[in-house]
Amino acid sequence: MTQHTRRDFIKRAVLGAAGVTLSGLTMSCSKPSKRSPNIVVIFVDDMGYGDMTRTGHPTIKTPNLDRMANEGVIMTQFYSANPVCSPSRAALLTGRWPIRNGVVKVFFPYHNVGLPKNEITLADLLKTKDYATGCIGKWHLGHKKEYLPTSRGFDYYYGIPYSNDMNNERRGDPPIPVMRNEKIVEQPANQDLLTKNYTKEAIQFIERSKDKPFFLYLAHTMPHVPLHVSDDYRDTSKRGLYGDVIEEIDWSVGQILDTLKDLKLDDNTFVAFTSDNGPWKIMKQNGGSAGLLRGYKATTWEGGMREPFIAKFPGRIPANTVTTEVGTTMDLFVTCLKLAGLEPPADRTIDGHDMMAVLQGKEKSQTKKIYYYFDDKLNAIRVGRYKLHFRKSPGDFTWQDCDPYELYDLLTDPSEKYDLAAEKPEIVKQLIKEAEDFKAEIENKNENRDLIDALMNRG
Amino acid sequence: MTQHTRRDFIKRAVLGAAGVTLSGLTMSCSKPSKRSPNIVVIFVDDMGYGDMTRTGHPTIKTPNLDRMANEGVIMTQFYSANPVCSPSRAALLTGRWPIRNGVVKVFFPYHNVGLPKNEITLADLLKTKDYATGCIGKWHLGHKKEYLPTSRGFDYYYGIPYSNDMNNERRGDPPIPVMRNEKIVEQPANQDLLTKNYTKEAIQFIERSKDKPFFLYLAHTMPHVPLHVSDDYRDTSKRGLYGDVIEEIDWSVGQILDTLKDLKLDDNTFVAFTSDNGPWKIMKQNGGSAGLLRGYKATTWEGGMREPFIAKFPGRIPANTVTTEVGTTMDLFVTCLKLAGLEPPADRTIDGHDMMAVLQGKEKSQTKKIYYYFDDKLNAIRVGRYKLHFRKSPGDFTWQDCDPYELYDLLTDPSEKYDLAAEKPEIVKQLIKEAEDFKAEIENKNENRDLIDALMNRG
Repeated sequence: MTQHTRRDFIKRAVLGAAGVTLSGLTMSCSKPSKRSPNIVVIFVDDMGYGDMTRTGHPTIKTPNLDRMANEGVIMTQFYSANPVCSPSRAALLTGRWPIRNGVVKVFFPYHNVGLPKNEITLADLLKTKDYATGCIGKWHLGHKKEYLPTSRGFDYYYGIPYSNDMNNERRGDPPIPVMRNEKIVEQPANQDLLTKNYTKEAIQFIERSKDKPFFLYLAHTMPHVPLHVSDDYRDTSKRGLYGDVIEEIDWSVGQILDTLKDLKLDDNTFVAFTSDNGPWKIMKQNGGSAGLLRGYKATTWEGGMREPFIAKFPGRIPANTVTTEVGTTMDLFVTCLKLAGLEPPADRTIDGHDMMAVLQGKEKSQTKKIYYYFDDKLNAIRVGRYKLHFRKSPGDFTWQDCDPYELYDLLTDPSEKYDLAAEKPEIVKQLIKEAEDFKAEIENKNENRDLIDALMNRG
Repeated sequence: MTQHTRRDFIKRAVLGAAGVTLSGLTMSCSKPSKRSPNIVVIFVDDMGYGDMTRTGHPTIKTPNLDRMANEGVIMTQFYSANPVCSPSRAALLTGRWPIRNGVVKVFFPYHNVGLPKNEITLADLLKTKDYATGCIGKWHLGHKKEYLPTSRGFDYYYGIPYSNDMNNERRGDPPIPVMRNEKIVEQPANQDLLTKNYTKEAIQFIERSKDKPFFLYLAHTMPHVPLHVSDDYRDTSKRGLYGDVIEEIDWSVGQILDTLKDLKLDDNTFVAFTSDNGPWKIMKQNGGSAGLLRGYKATTWEGGMREPFIAKFPGRIPANTVTTEVGTTMDLFVTCLKLAGLEPPADRTIDGHDMMAVLQGKEKSQTKKIYYYFDDKLNAIRVGRYKLHFRKSPGDFTWQDCDPYELYDLLTDPSEKYDLAAEKPEIVKQLIKEAEDFKAEIENKNENRDLIDALMNRG
């Protein structure tokens, strides 16, 4: 698909969304009467629910995240779409569960595939409104040219195309590259400077984009192991190296917020902060904490997918608030589109909902169901307050069927300690049916079955 | 001891503290040139470290505790002195570890004993400065007349003299009484109204005491099981009954803060909020959460003794701050004395330190050692960042020796997951010595050996 063909493809998807009523409008780049808001999404890697001051960490100091929370809202039941990296990112950028967008497993350097080309990213869509779009940091949705950010709606890319530990020589991995757009500019990456350099690049992107609406997707490589930190933050946190790394990310958040204020963009910028999945337990002290939540990265307990989440938008989101409503990264996708005055593509299923009214404390969440997949297996389902586990992880990347199924009330028992399955057979039955229905829907119509089969080494 | 003799006894203890230099001063009730600040200590029962919004609970809403934190400081490493009720309260009110003040076990209705009469309470001391002193709520330091709050420095008492579950008929316990001063005014207590009634009594105490400095010790019965809540809060929290109860306590905190503001006392009042010990795990969903901390009530893991802590004092403590420094309820004892212009008694060992400069963010904590006792056994010791376990609780009220000892770095590993004993034999040796030294000190001079022996059924 050429850039031009791709633009047409996206235009068709978007136009479809508006249906007949909008069909007469052009999708040209004419300036809207009121300037569309800027959007900044800060997405960190493997930070746990409990790894900041506002979620109770006793020895990690996050004054800038605190400040962001003071100026905005914390969500206490916010989910990434998957407990591992590539699927989580694919869902954020497409508004679709990984089982729909095809990215059900993590990409490795030996892969030639990426986020399927028929998938449309948030950046693709914001480009139709003439947003400047920048991706700084970890991509991990395909590192061949046609899958890189600059082929997926981003004007600019700077960062590492996959995880910072994917340099296994015996597997034939090259040293970790840093890329600018499609070119490698540093190899091996000096990881100590990554958080700093990403921050500098992000600020430069904001500065040079400030005259039109922009979308900055700042996806930190840290705190994914191997942990690295600049000299300024080394040995500064009580929490040790992991704390140093989080505190440098916190500094980075402060730099972004300061830049927005200095450029007087603050009032017209929506900023969200969250993480791609839970903490990496096998790394011991180098992994984070899910707080009171059970489980961790690569499990479908809450600790694997429930994330710290803060959003701010002065004047639009009330300051210093907390919502216990449910949200997801796919909701973030729709919310960002709506902020830009766009509708989500109508030619495909979008799993997110606009959550602006939830962030404003005006409405309850429209997101009632969470599907906890690992690979292409549905391990658990949440409907309303209840979560039913079909398959669970007793250790790292090991799985066993739940026999019998386990049912938890996530509102009264967020730590998933007290199995209610025997007490509530009707709820179990209902959730089994919801799960079966979803699986049938996925089977019935799945544009990305080829990629799923390839990633699962089938067919 | 008559009231008069007791006053003399306290006076001697206090005068001793100031040594020669102050010996010429009278301890009369002459008004200080600047009015001494009011002191409010809100002490809840069995609330866990993780049971409020600011320590990451996803479904309990605590907007008034949030407000208090916005106006003051959170401590993330604040300890009660013991993982069960009476010892914890005895330490708060005497500034001494339970193994010193003698209260090493929980009092039951069949006990005739209480906090030893030679112990001096915070209220006793504040009375020497003409404070109005009120105890509202759970006492649990002896329910015979001579041990009740009105015999221990409090002008006024309203509440339940021990725990709200101590009405075991087969054991001969009477129905739960509510007392005003020394009289039972309600029996059995209507526990649904306890939080409301305590709040009303606390407000009335503030209103009638407002013309002189006052000390309000508001020790909620909740969230100790059996959980009770008023109709206004029943079925209102996503967290269920436990959440209803915490949210009513949160309302109560708001009422106290509002009263102080309305009476223009806010600027001259120090308010602290904390809990007596960790959450009661065996009560399942009716027990709370220690957040990321391991263990719970009646264990000497961090979850048993590390508590939520918020303090405010407008103009004296900076707003919206967090400190990761260590503090204890015994520090709170000394801090309150110092605020009132008093020195701690000099005729006995006081285990706390003035922590005002810590709360102000100006100094590091002077509290370097934590002694984790259960009954009269030293189960673990913290010195600096390290904690060594000699004996641990694998379940509820069961104990086993650690063999070998277990060592944790509480700064990098607050959840006590990664035993470092094998890696750090020198630290282990040092902490064993510190523990032996402390035990020798306690053995060498212990004014309250009789009570300890009685409570342990010895001698």
